[in-house]
Amino acid sequence: MTTDAESESDTDADAPGTYERFEKHVKRYHYVGDAGGVLQWDQEVMMPDEGTPARAKQLSTLSTVSHEMLTDDDLSGWLDELDGQNLDEGQRANVRETRREHERAVKVPSDLVERISETTSNALPVWKEAKAEDDFDAYADTLEEIIQLKREYAEAIDSDRDPYEVLFEEYEPYLGLDTAEQILERLRDELVPLIDDIDDSDVELADPFSGAYDEADQEELVRAALDTLGYDWDRGRLDTAPHPFSTGTQFDARVTTRFQAEDPLDAVGSTIHEFGHATYTQGLPREHYGTPLGDSRDLSVHESQSRLWENHVGRSRPFWELFADTVDDHLGVDAAPGAFYEAANTVHPDNLIRVEADELTYHMHIVLRFEIERDLIHGDLDVEEVPQVWNEKMEEYLGVRPDTDSEGCLQDIHWTHGSFGYFPTYSLGSVLAAQLYAAAEDDLGSLDGQIREGNFDPIHDWLTENVHAHGSRYTTDDLIREATGEEFTADYFLDYADAKYRELYDC
Amino acid sequence: MTTDAESESDTDADAPGTYERFEKHVKRYHYVGDAGGVLQWDQEVMMPDEGTPARAKQLSTLSTVSHEMLTDDDLSGWLDELDGQNLDEGQRANVRETRREHERAVKVPSDLVERISETTSNALPVWKEAKAEDDFDAYADTLEEIIQLKREYAEAIDSDRDPYEVLFEEYEPYLGLDTAEQILERLRDELVPLIDDIDDSDVELADPFSGAYDEADQEELVRAALDTLGYDWDRGRLDTAPHPFSTGTQFDARVTTRFQAEDPLDAVGSTIHEFGHATYTQGLPREHYGTPLGDSRDLSVHESQSRLWENHVGRSRPFWELFADTVDDHLGVDAAPGAFYEAANTVHPDNLIRVEADELTYHMHIVLRFEIERDLIHGDLDVEEVPQVWNEKMEEYLGVRPDTDSEGCLQDIHWTHGSFGYFPTYSLGSVLAAQLYAAAEDDLGSLDGQIREGNFDPIHDWLTENVHAHGSRYTTDDLIREATGEEFTADYFLDYADAKYRELYDC
Repeated sequence: MTTDAESESDTDADAPGTYERFEKHVKRYHYVGDAGGVLQWDQEVMMPDEGTPARAKQLSTLSTVSHEMLTDDDLSGWLDELDGQNLDEGQRANVRETRREHERAVKVPSDLVERISETTSNALPVWKEAKAEDDFDAYADTLEEIIQLKREYAEAIDSDRDPYEVLFEEYEPYLGLDTAEQILERLRDELVPLIDDIDDSDVELADPFSGAYDEADQEELVRAALDTLGYDWDRGRLDTAPHPFSTGTQFDARVTTRFQAEDPLDAVGSTIHEFGHATYTQGLPREHYGTPLGDSRDLSVHESQSRLWENHVGRSRPFWELFADTVDDHLGVDAAPGAFYEAANTVHPDNLIRVEADELTYHMHIVLRFEIERDLIHGDLDVEEVPQVWNEKMEEYLGVRPDTDSEGCLQDIHWTHGSFGYFPTYSLGSVLAAQLYAAAEDDLGSLDGQIREGNFDPIHDWLTENVHAHGSRYTTDDLIREATGEEFTADYFLDYADAKYRELYDC
Repeated sequence: MTTDAESESDTDADAPGTYERFEKHVKRYHYVGDAGGVLQWDQEVMMPDEGTPARAKQLSTLSTVSHEMLTDDDLSGWLDELDGQNLDEGQRANVRETRREHERAVKVPSDLVERISETTSNALPVWKEAKAEDDFDAYADTLEEIIQLKREYAEAIDSDRDPYEVLFEEYEPYLGLDTAEQILERLRDELVPLIDDIDDSDVELADPFSGAYDEADQEELVRAALDTLGYDWDRGRLDTAPHPFSTGTQFDARVTTRFQAEDPLDAVGSTIHEFGHATYTQGLPREHYGTPLGDSRDLSVHESQSRLWENHVGRSRPFWELFADTVDDHLGVDAAPGAFYEAANTVHPDNLIRVEADELTYHMHIVLRFEIERDLIHGDLDVEEVPQVWNEKMEEYLGVRPDTDSEGCLQDIHWTHGSFGYFPTYSLGSVLAAQLYAAAEDDLGSLDGQIREGNFDPIHDWLTENVHAHGSRYTTDDLIREATGEEFTADYFLDYADAKYRELYDC
């Protein structure tokens, strides 16, 4: 509180005091969350096998502490007091984001939170076993129970609205489910014919890789990729994890990757993807660490950063013109840049597994999951119908039918975790990546030459200035408008995909 | 609460409910503390350089949350209610230990806690700079300020007692400062003449090492040492850190080490030392994780486990008879076991640095620090006299005088951290190690043969049964009595040291 403020009226004099107390509390809430992030990273990357029981207790305690901070009565009071106060734009953003999280959290009874947590914990081994045994029936009751609980959860938050919309907003609060639906429908309507044409094409793309590649060599290669792209090692590190992820803060944003002996492009692509997430995190304003202003926007925006680097940079022709020699240096694969470019962009409609899908067919895997999970939450689809509907949609969208549910509707962990409404954000991220990349090129001119020369500063700077530096200052829709001058649209992604793949497959 | 309890009288019906609420709270407190331990391990071992600002916020928030849990009014109420309740022995121990910590914590005003935290934080760069510049004067005011604050701290806890005793009890609550003083005086009185005789001896012990050894080879060697001793890798891991330490829980107790190119025995000794700490942690009862019953006893007992393995096993003749070939395998040093044994036990009275001291002269470094810090807290010694008194005592106890304060009174970080009363626990740990080892051999017979054969199960089992499995069930003095049948005594350590070193140095 300043001395000046003390001479003002009571109400005004209270305002800065309230905001400061509010902000201190918000920071503690964020710091506890980030501490949990370190524990999770450690669990995935470093923890010995038998550490799980203790780690589960530590994490669930941090999560309880965090929940108590978010639903705290003092916080309610401060949010009430700050309502209508004369705050600056940044302060208003911190209040808006905290209020949104707070209001959702206080609406959900703690016994429901506990039941969801317990049910999804217990569901994990059931799902694993069902997947291993290809036995959907053994999992069906569990899935039904989770769906019921998630409906209850949505109803607790807002019983007047579409429960799937309420769940979707957990991951993407500002884009609107209607916008998401329109975009996913356009992807389905326009990508299915494109994929069909590719399937009919006689073109065989090059594959310069053969045999198995040493893990240590692959690691050197992906480290070289991170060096090339400008990863800030003083604020990050690279490790391996079974399911690659990125985590951390603007002071310490870490990347993980994995290695498949016969497919070095998997490690390269997945490393560049996680690098994209990490550069977003590293680009968040350090002075706002611990508040929404210093925190990333939601899942689609985060995914747009990973997809932009993975696809628009890492799967581009100029990138492979730059990077082909490095592959030769580390793996002894002497091929023309065009051959690597083709290998990185080969479309496999017959692939059944989402996480192994190419840039294009990936979205059909998402559309399918979106349609099924929405109908499940709405009660328009019974759990026992899932395998059949899954397989029919695979046939319809990709022309391929899984032989087993393990390779079909049992492949992903998300529903078992209780995550309904999460899948769409993957595709929305790709779509946004294309829109942002087009806006960057609109401002900077074509980036091909810069990429070919290994100069990634312009695109880094553009993304930092237009996305990263804002943290959660803007709502997601406003952020997109500010950065691109347009509403969120699938136009750029569809144009990009059409041009790129029709050229590659001559179709 | 059971259904049966509900039919009992009001008071009895409340008892189990209170204890359960108490225990749930205590567990949360311990889990948050252990989460902080993971963050600290990460900071020392994994964190990139620029991660510090965020990590400092995360750790200080966890520390605040932890302090709030410990000083919580509900906890006060439960402790009052549980006073005189009919609890079992284990429950009483959990109440006793929690009450002790709670009562200390509530007595210290939070602004004093904050001032100490701030002052010691700010002191760190001042001490580092003074040490680098060999400029004690630049550090004197800072040290004076810390001493004043620690006196205030002790006074807040108990203004009627010796403030140094109150500070010592932070690290060692049950041994009694008078016992500690008697033991340290005996070490001084009996080791100084022994060290003098060694200094006068003409015997030159063997040193089979020469030149520099590759870090990767040294790492393989210390991993082999951990394998040999029976480290449970499923509940631990080995990494490097500038100042080796061990941390974790009974589910995940990790070891760190460091490598000196020209002195592979440093890594071996320091790894075995941290292994000793980790086996204690791994031996704590898993079913009591999160309560004092599942937590280790205080610093002297922890140090007794590290010193027992480091000195009584790792510096023994039979260990080197077992391990000499392994050194040859990894470092290509082909020498007789006796040569390694001698190298591991060479006494260097002219060494100035505590952390580089041998098994014997180490205790003179501790006695000196103990005498100085006790006099500082008592006000019997002024800060500006510290360098002179330090150097005089070095001369008196070890016959050597530092040329600089950097190699003298500025070498250790402890006082800068505000740790007064900590140093004695290192020597008390060595003394207790000898007493426990003697008690184990009293029960099991000489362990030399087992060690020579690489059979460490008997000593592991004895320590687990007599020390580890008890957690904090007994007070430290009771634990020693239970395990050894005697009061805490320096007899065994002094006999061991006298016999071993007079034989080695023929004096």
